[in-house]
Amino acid sequence: MPRILRVHMGRLEATYEESPEDYALLGGRALSAEILNREVPPRCNPLGPENKLLLVPGLLGGTAVTTSGRVSIGTKSPLTGGIKEANVGGQLGHKLIRLGIKAIVIEGAPRDGAWHMLRVDRDGARFEPGDSLAGLGNYDLHARLLGGPARERCAVTIGPAGEHRMTGASVAVSDPEGRPTRHAARGGVGAVMGAKGLKAIVVDDTGTTTIKAAEPEVFRRDTTGFSKVVLEDRRTHHMSKYGTAGVIRYVNREEVQSMPTRNHRFGRFDRADLISGIRIAEQAPARGGKMLPCMAGCIIKCAILYNDADGQHLTTALEFETIALLGSNLEIGDIDAVAQLDHACDDIGLDSIEIGNALGVAMEAGVLPWGDWQRVSEALDEVRRGTELGRALGNGAVSAARTFGVTRVPAVKGQGLPAWEPRTLKGFGITYATSPQGADHTAGMVMARDVTTNTLLLQSRHEQVLMAVVDSVGLCQFANPVAKDMAGLLNARHGVNLSEEDVLDIGRRCLKREREFNLAAGLTDDRLPDFLRSEPLHLPSGPSVYDVPDDVVERFWDF
Amino acid sequence: MPRILRVHMGRLEATYEESPEDYALLGGRALSAEILNREVPPRCNPLGPENKLLLVPGLLGGTAVTTSGRVSIGTKSPLTGGIKEANVGGQLGHKLIRLGIKAIVIEGAPRDGAWHMLRVDRDGARFEPGDSLAGLGNYDLHARLLGGPARERCAVTIGPAGEHRMTGASVAVSDPEGRPTRHAARGGVGAVMGAKGLKAIVVDDTGTTTIKAAEPEVFRRDTTGFSKVVLEDRRTHHMSKYGTAGVIRYVNREEVQSMPTRNHRFGRFDRADLISGIRIAEQAPARGGKMLPCMAGCIIKCAILYNDADGQHLTTALEFETIALLGSNLEIGDIDAVAQLDHACDDIGLDSIEIGNALGVAMEAGVLPWGDWQRVSEALDEVRRGTELGRALGNGAVSAARTFGVTRVPAVKGQGLPAWEPRTLKGFGITYATSPQGADHTAGMVMARDVTTNTLLLQSRHEQVLMAVVDSVGLCQFANPVAKDMAGLLNARHGVNLSEEDVLDIGRRCLKREREFNLAAGLTDDRLPDFLRSEPLHLPSGPSVYDVPDDVVERFWDF
Repeated sequence: MPRILRVHMGRLEATYEESPEDYALLGGRALSAEILNREVPPRCNPLGPENKLLLVPGLLGGTAVTTSGRVSIGTKSPLTGGIKEANVGGQLGHKLIRLGIKAIVIEGAPRDGAWHMLRVDRDGARFEPGDSLAGLGNYDLHARLLGGPARERCAVTIGPAGEHRMTGASVAVSDPEGRPTRHAARGGVGAVMGAKGLKAIVVDDTGTTTIKAAEPEVFRRDTTGFSKVVLEDRRTHHMSKYGTAGVIRYVNREEVQSMPTRNHRFGRFDRADLISGIRIAEQAPARGGKMLPCMAGCIIKCAILYNDADGQHLTTALEFETIALLGSNLEIGDIDAVAQLDHACDDIGLDSIEIGNALGVAMEAGVLPWGDWQRVSEALDEVRRGTELGRALGNGAVSAARTFGVTRVPAVKGQGLPAWEPRTLKGFGITYATSPQGADHTAGMVMARDVTTNTLLLQSRHEQVLMAVVDSVGLCQFANPVAKDMAGLLNARHGVNLSEEDVLDIGRRCLKREREFNLAAGLTDDRLPDFLRSEPLHLPSGPSVYDVPDDVVERFWDF
Repeated sequence: MPRILRVHMGRLEATYEESPEDYALLGGRALSAEILNREVPPRCNPLGPENKLLLVPGLLGGTAVTTSGRVSIGTKSPLTGGIKEANVGGQLGHKLIRLGIKAIVIEGAPRDGAWHMLRVDRDGARFEPGDSLAGLGNYDLHARLLGGPARERCAVTIGPAGEHRMTGASVAVSDPEGRPTRHAARGGVGAVMGAKGLKAIVVDDTGTTTIKAAEPEVFRRDTTGFSKVVLEDRRTHHMSKYGTAGVIRYVNREEVQSMPTRNHRFGRFDRADLISGIRIAEQAPARGGKMLPCMAGCIIKCAILYNDADGQHLTTALEFETIALLGSNLEIGDIDAVAQLDHACDDIGLDSIEIGNALGVAMEAGVLPWGDWQRVSEALDEVRRGTELGRALGNGAVSAARTFGVTRVPAVKGQGLPAWEPRTLKGFGITYATSPQGADHTAGMVMARDVTTNTLLLQSRHEQVLMAVVDSVGLCQFANPVAKDMAGLLNARHGVNLSEEDVLDIGRRCLKREREFNLAAGLTDDRLPDFLRSEPLHLPSGPSVYDVPDDVVERFWDF
């Protein structure tokens, strides 16, 4: 029977309990939303003892289904004040499921200022002193905890930003090479882990075996079938070659303008080609760059391993959002520089989207010069050290705007804007406004242009429901699973008989539960920043602003 | 006919318009709430062009009624995100009414980064360049604008904190001696004035005469009668002698414990006698200290003029709240030190309550040492200069807590806690929770102890309604006016026939309009900080926490 591992930081107790029966068909994001609604007072202080941090693998985790090892890290966000699910790949999800763990619930608060480490394996869960780990960056920390590529072990850690309880702090999960390049980045989940006094979790699945499906034959067939669909998908080809950075040439087009530049003032960047996925791919062979899976069993392999000119590793997660927010948005047109900044963010444990927005705000205020990556690098070092400037930035875009008196704040529900541009890709605006997560592009990507508002609304809703399912099943959105695929796999895995509609209902219920939490927490502002309505981008067809009426947001929830 | 002076900062236009008829019996806080609801989008950015800053004298302003020259400075607060009325004495209110001005509405935003000054007199309202005033502290600024005691002229200004648009910034109004000691302090109204690019307003009522009442004889009689009542009140005697600092000996008692100490951790301060009103009064004669009125015509004279040991002026507003938040709350037990810090706050243009709370949070985080007033003085200088530390503090308690990762946040609706202690004086807790203003002791003082929750609720409601009337009429709460007094004066002044209930209805409607704005703005959190419920104060009768159930707040609005 799957169990919940309940970890109490005040008593330093880690105990297993049976998972309630009604959690049987809940996993990942949906289970996270359910537990948060049941166990966390919506109005509690996110960094206080009443909040909880959840690590929840998906319903297909631990199996051979490609990309199925993703994990939802859930909490009340100290960044938004609402519910949060930060989704992450890496080696964690499969191991949790193989250890029979349906969710780890971390609660309470440490009685002293000490740091702790939690070790989870087949023999149980044990605390170890963590004070000797305090202050370490994620790279040193993962090297020390794992000692390199680690098949059986996985580390889940915070860097200095999480220790400082900064609301832009991430939780790092190790990749197959034992590096901290996978981040549950958004919403300040790392700050909550820091507030719990937990510097690291090491999960070891030595001695466990692959999960047995209820209907092994069908499951094996469907698993293979799904892999085939993924491999034959044109989107996969592109992703395997260029990663998410492959979209840059497209989004920088005159008619799309979704390459945020100068704190989202413009949508095109004159040096976009210098930081594009194609550029990265071109220089990879000479430097030992390559495409890797972020978890065992992933056949897409969209992670860009990026080495510097000397062949030294800088990052294995040079994503489009990172390149846009730390590159064009700051007018930095040097991909080596962006990769260095990304390395720093991974090491410090920072959401690159949030810190990129905060840095853009600081540049707008004149605190840092546009385009000066060395100064940005120094500023990141201030985040690491927790200086006042570092804290203003590490706490994210809204904090930076408040500190520096900037009114052009690129955030929704307190969370910094992703790269996707609501003035031209208006469906993204609807997603940012309506998602209980705040401005989150992964919540529901809507690429359509030149369609009616109603169509955009329906597409955003459909994508958000589907993504809520994907995040609950534990798959990667880049596997592009449809409800039918997931229904088949879930049925064979769990011995149930879900229809496509039943599967979509998991997503619908998840979204509603998330919104319920937000309303009870008093997080009711669904508006996009004013500048998206008042400052047009200039398309060939004329000026374009985000002009979806606010009341559309209300209609979104009619399902 | 009374007029509204509408000041547009983008066009640099100041034009008079007729006051709508339905504003006839609205003034001060009630008129402010009405204009904000009609003209300001509740969800707007408080520092953006859609917000407005209102200067609204009361319905009895400009007359000989004692203390009647108070002014409501209204806006959407950048500190709370909700409606704000910061009430201030000084020389402003009488002059506005004598110039026939029912309200000044400052709107729009400057097109450039320039600073402006507005001059208002009998000939109209004119802009003057303000760049040469930028960076000046309030003391230099008022000296330059007024040149000393000024009967006919009054200055309304922001200091460096307002220029930095810090959310703890005040608006300073000159006292009869031409000094910037009267502050509309709370809620960051100074930040809004700064965002408008307005460094100073000079109001000159030369050539105007006292306001004529509709029924001059009755009004004169009632005015004299009211003065007599005030003068004979025992509370006035105490206030005239010791100012608000006179309560310190009482609040520091073992059974009251309302002298916040060490970031509100304790309610008694071992050196309270060294910073009490009695102590101040004792040393006054040798130093030239005295009690003064804060505006012409006030017969209470509760303003403490405090000189240093050399007889040099430090402040004329050494209030209980200032002494508690900058003194005991920081474990500073030296009244000269507190007076120096108060001088700095007046000069920089800072709410002493808000900055005191922010400093307490910084001390709790270990950023500053407890009790070290020189370090506090240096920190205030950082606020003046707008360094990162200065910004974290100048933006108030919530900002400081966020910057330094502190979860014990002494604030309600984002506004720092006053000195009055909800764990022992629980009625204050109800007022802090329910007031649309956030934690504001002046919103409704409830001194009762050992009564039922229901009694406390009724008292808080009564006081809040009454205070809303007092703030709308323009009187000082220390005149202790009752509804009957105000009805008589209003009737004779305006030629109307209001009953006591009609007068109270002004307050009831005002509160409801304020709440309406907050709900539309999404400001729905009515809870007190957790520590007031979880950390008891130890009274002789046993441990005491704030234990009024949260749902009492809902019942508050049943009127």
